[in-house]
Amino acid sequence: MSATKIKVAIAGASGYTGAELVRLLLRHPNVELMGVSSERNAGMWLHELHPQLQNLTQIRLKPLEEIDLDELDTLFLALPHRVSMLFVEKHHPLPCKVIDLSGDFRMTDTALYEKWYQTKHVMPALSAQAAYGLPELFRDQIQSAQLIANPGCYPTSAILPLAPLVNEKLIEPDSVVIDAKSGITGAGISPKANTHFPHAYDNFSAYGMQTHRHSPEIEQTVQRFTGQDVIAQFTPHLLPVNRGILTATYSTCKKTISPEALSELYHSYYGEEYFIRLRSDSPQLRFVRASNFCDIYASYDPRTNRIITLSAIDNLMKGAAGQAVQNMNLINNLKETTGLTESPVCP
Amino acid sequence: MSATKIKVAIAGASGYTGAELVRLLLRHPNVELMGVSSERNAGMWLHELHPQLQNLTQIRLKPLEEIDLDELDTLFLALPHRVSMLFVEKHHPLPCKVIDLSGDFRMTDTALYEKWYQTKHVMPALSAQAAYGLPELFRDQIQSAQLIANPGCYPTSAILPLAPLVNEKLIEPDSVVIDAKSGITGAGISPKANTHFPHAYDNFSAYGMQTHRHSPEIEQTVQRFTGQDVIAQFTPHLLPVNRGILTATYSTCKKTISPEALSELYHSYYGEEYFIRLRSDSPQLRFVRASNFCDIYASYDPRTNRIITLSAIDNLMKGAAGQAVQNMNLINNLKETTGLTESPVCP
Amino acid sequence: MSATKIKVAIAGASGYTGAELVRLLLRHPNVELMGVSSERNAGMWLHELHPQLQNLTQIRLKPLEEIDLDELDTLFLALPHRVSMLFVEKHHPLPCKVIDLSGDFRMTDTALYEKWYQTKHVMPALSAQAAYGLPELFRDQIQSAQLIANPGCYPTSAILPLAPLVNEKLIEPDSVVIDAKSGITGAGISPKANTHFPHAYDNFSAYGMQTHRHSPEIEQTVQRFTGQDVIAQFTPHLLPVNRGILTATYSTCKKTISPEALSELYHSYYGEEYFIRLRSDSPQLRFVRASNFCDIYASYDPRTNRIITLSAIDNLMKGAAGQAVQNMNLINNLKETTGLTESPVCP
Amino acid sequence: MSATKIKVAIAGASGYTGAELVRLLLRHPNVELMGVSSERNAGMWLHELHPQLQNLTQIRLKPLEEIDLDELDTLFLALPHRVSMLFVEKHHPLPCKVIDLSGDFRMTDTALYEKWYQTKHVMPALSAQAAYGLPELFRDQIQSAQLIANPGCYPTSAILPLAPLVNEKLIEPDSVVIDAKSGITGAGISPKANTHFPHAYDNFSAYGMQTHRHSPEIEQTVQRFTGQDVIAQFTPHLLPVNRGILTATYSTCKKTISPEALSELYHSYYGEEYFIRLRSDSPQLRFVRASNFCDIYASYDPRTNRIITLSAIDNLMKGAAGQAVQNMNLINNLKETTGLTESPVCP
Repeated sequence: MSATKIKVAIAGASGYTGAELVRLLLRHPNVELMGVSSERNAGMWLHELHPQLQNLTQIRLKPLEEIDLDELDTLFLALPHRVSMLFVEKHHPLPCKVIDLSGDFRMTDTALYEKWYQTKHVMPALSAQAAYGLPELFRDQIQSAQLIANPGCYPTSAILPLAPLVNEKLIEPDSVVIDAKSGITGAGISPKANTHFPHAYDNFSAYGMQTHRHSPEIEQTVQRFTGQDVIAQFTPHLLPVNRGILTATYSTCKKTISPEALSELYHSYYGEEYFIRLRSDSPQLRFVRASNFCDIYASYDPRTNRIITLSAIDNLMKGAAGQAVQNMNLINNLKETTGLTESPVCP
Repeated sequence: MSATKIKVAIAGASGYTGAELVRLLLRHPNVELMGVSSERNAGMWLHELHPQLQNLTQIRLKPLEEIDLDELDTLFLALPHRVSMLFVEKHHPLPCKVIDLSGDFRMTDTALYEKWYQTKHVMPALSAQAAYGLPELFRDQIQSAQLIANPGCYPTSAILPLAPLVNEKLIEPDSVVIDAKSGITGAGISPKANTHFPHAYDNFSAYGMQTHRHSPEIEQTVQRFTGQDVIAQFTPHLLPVNRGILTATYSTCKKTISPEALSELYHSYYGEEYFIRLRSDSPQLRFVRASNFCDIYASYDPRTNRIITLSAIDNLMKGAAGQAVQNMNLINNLKETTGLTESPVCP
Repeated sequence: MSATKIKVAIAGASGYTGAELVRLLLRHPNVELMGVSSERNAGMWLHELHPQLQNLTQIRLKPLEEIDLDELDTLFLALPHRVSMLFVEKHHPLPCKVIDLSGDFRMTDTALYEKWYQTKHVMPALSAQAAYGLPELFRDQIQSAQLIANPGCYPTSAILPLAPLVNEKLIEPDSVVIDAKSGITGAGISPKANTHFPHAYDNFSAYGMQTHRHSPEIEQTVQRFTGQDVIAQFTPHLLPVNRGILTATYSTCKKTISPEALSELYHSYYGEEYFIRLRSDSPQLRFVRASNFCDIYASYDPRTNRIITLSAIDNLMKGAAGQAVQNMNLINNLKETTGLTESPVCP
Repeated sequence: MSATKIKVAIAGASGYTGAELVRLLLRHPNVELMGVSSERNAGMWLHELHPQLQNLTQIRLKPLEEIDLDELDTLFLALPHRVSMLFVEKHHPLPCKVIDLSGDFRMTDTALYEKWYQTKHVMPALSAQAAYGLPELFRDQIQSAQLIANPGCYPTSAILPLAPLVNEKLIEPDSVVIDAKSGITGAGISPKANTHFPHAYDNFSAYGMQTHRHSPEIEQTVQRFTGQDVIAQFTPHLLPVNRGILTATYSTCKKTISPEALSELYHSYYGEEYFIRLRSDSPQLRFVRASNFCDIYASYDPRTNRIITLSAIDNLMKGAAGQAVQNMNLINNLKETTGLTESPVCP
């Protein structure tokens, strides 16, 4: 349809994020998918590994090293952390733009990375330069970046509602409590005891209290956007659904605020953002399922002097692959929403 | 983008089928959605009724009578049965093509309709002329029809695997057992006791044994395609998932058949059909979720001399709205797959 | 087996709480179930209304007025709020002990009741005398009470972990955030839009922010136990499971506390309590399913100076019927755990 | 409470069946649980492995060889097939009664065993003598047996409704179609790809068509009870719930039968059986959840001349541990229902 097809490839297409990228790129009108890699499954047809794709692709998985970076406009890295960083190091300087969906380049302060990921960072200078791929907050940096660190799913759901509050100095920066609940695709495609159906179905529990790597990512990113230090209490939970994150945040206000002023504040930040939908009631996972939307509700409780926000995303979309495609559009001068305007699948 | 936009409207957009039609029509490159109706919700924005659609539409629901049929190429009727028939009667002769998603025009023999639906048919002659909207079997009739009876969800899932077997006279026509399982959207959008979450979740049961209206629809349609009378034992079940039907059929063979010959048979009928995917193992609901595919597996059991088929569809897509759009494409001379080539959403 | 059978009846056996009481009372070795009432279903066999009970009972539902209070030791009221209060008023002074599972007698301060329930309280003096039926905190009052207000499900899950912290003056009393998630049986047995399977399944959302009646119940009860005023931020969520509440609480400490001291604190309050199980990791709903246990985990986060607690109960058991039976045992001088020592059903 | 406590132990308490046996034996008034074994987890507290049991037991897991058979009345073997058989061989002649929950002793014809289990049977003579532990059909043999082969879950659900029909020569013995659906605990406690939550949730599929080991078990057991050869078409499915099997059977009648006669037939076989509940509508999994009931519905379809049955059990109860305890009661001269009369947990 268009002469402007950009050439992309996916490193790591065995997992949920890689498969979701395929789903999005196949329908994208301006993309040519040049290759998809998987070490374990190299040689298989992509639709053998992901049978939902039968009749939709005729691509074979190949080893990562067989992807030719020189022919690409953009490469998506959907690799485990550390593997991602080593790949970037090996191919440095990168001959194409890279969108990394691992945690490897999300911290400008790699000391923080090394503490929370318990591994040495091999490219600290590059990490400091990487753009944080949350377009609603860092659009300018993204557009000019060579390497984009695609945000974590929990951080996306928490940073978007919190950033305006911190930036406007409305809330006490050490009062933030984040109680987040994620569908089980967030735990990845490998079967484990806690994702075994009879253990997760009809069940609910928290995990990773005080130790989850998304905790410093949230704090650091809010700081990066607002210039202010924030200390956030972050607790993730395992929700017995496939997709979706619903995050509640609680912050103590420095002063009272009217409902109208709070609403106005969010509209001033996000009123023009296609992917952010401001709601007048609690968001629901089903209203964002399979879409790139982030639904946000905010309210002020005069009885407690707190602002409470609720936000919903699809963790595989705005929390991973959808946001990555949004970033791809940006860095390739495509309309930011291209390929991402499908209605959520509901119910 | 194109000069060839066709003009369509949806009568009855409050339910799941209507909402799914909106989802599909909004992304369709050759469609202009002229109107959506709802008696109860007239005046509301469509995205107020279906909040997943926020930022995607700016359409208001209006009363059915305000839809202007003269400006339309195709009208979708997503109305309750009987209401549909009365609407068609009132507007006869129809000024545009009509795709009816109710059961009102699916029986050429309206005596059968009157028996199973317990209501008088008001337009028996028209019912006899209506095309049965299963393109893989009745493509020619559909293309030239003014009124298309869009098939029921269970019938679609059962007829597609059975038709080749009956047509080739491979099986005893009175030996057919159909054991079908449907997700709960099939029961509609109105809350009832058996669809109350705590009653349906972590539960499973059959219903409508011997009395389900899809039973005569299956038999009559197989007869219509093959010229042979079939007696089918049909038992539907309520599956604790949102979308999807998995149907098993069991038929006694007239003679033995090799696995190769059986496979060849299905390929000769469906090998060129985009929306039918022949599988080498049991279909799974997740591989067709939110797509228009019908996945089929067939095997011959030499120990029992039976052919067993398993088929999977999304009941809201190939079982309703997706198939309706496929029919719309056909009758408007668009490519049959237009707007329907999205990957399933998995997981 | 014993001469000491106590005589009980259930007013209101149509809902989940009533049915769960039947389940527990049928297996209780010291109870004779004299009657069960339902206005709508009077005359039906109990097992016709609740088919799971077939072969287990031969009791017919009768109208409330036909229950003979004079022959009873204890009456359970599983009626809607207000209906409960009017029944008590009519029969005052009560000829038997009454355990009320509605919200009508949970507030000593009936002005608070009238504000949150938007209805006039007809027996404020009696409400002030009613014991709050949380045995781990109010065992003495319960044992000598004529009328017991059985706690709400959310309050049970929140008060048990919070009471020791407030009582020991460890936390700032206005810093408490309670983020709670409940299975859908908590919404009752009547089908509604938000409990319709396709709306609740694969979904998650908050509701009743700032307006839920359990909010003042939590604050007032903590005050009643500790003598201290607390302001709690309470947000409930609808979890797509049948049974169970998992509640997270976040409280800012007045001073630091070691993990050992925190553990010792909870052991000093609950170490001897059969129904409270102190955990070293997040509780899980599946470990308390169908049981009367409350599992509690508490930790101190030195980075934020907060104590985080997580607690899990079965909302129909420790959150309603199980706790009611525990109270029944207490007021009838039975061993408190009688009939309640069954293993959870897991998975 | 009683002088008649019998002494039992469980070999293999790591899996779901072992844990369910513990749940039942702990509440059984006439049982003393002498030991539980697990090779992998020997030394752990039972409640560390199964945290739902905290506060309910103080038993440590030990290696299988440390269980002292000489002190036992009954030993439950909840071991993998083949391991079970080797254990029995090693301890032959058995010093106590043994209830084996594996498939090792279910086939009187061990040639059939060897074909379907692909392993040599080490004790064919003993297998021929073992009682098939389905009390409703083989009560006499069970009472006098030293070794009881506890039935498979699918066979229990299929044999109970079919046995009367075959025994009365009502149906064509080669016409039987069995379409069965099982909750995912049936697949065991070890995480696998097809039981990974995101693959099983919101999904449904068949598996093991023509190859499932329960197929010959069903046919052989019906033959054993009725003396007639039956050929059954058996297709199992994986249902996205934790517990429960719902099985539909379809059989062609030799002659017509009235609804009354069919009802009378089932009442004559099962009217006195506590654990079999004859239903007038489709059974539902929720009505048998966590109980030892088998709910059966049967109807005759005059249009097709078929009898259709629907039956529901909890696969871990009547399909495994519950039935094993029922057998234990029988062989130890306890009332057959002891410890098994709890209400199902619903919802």
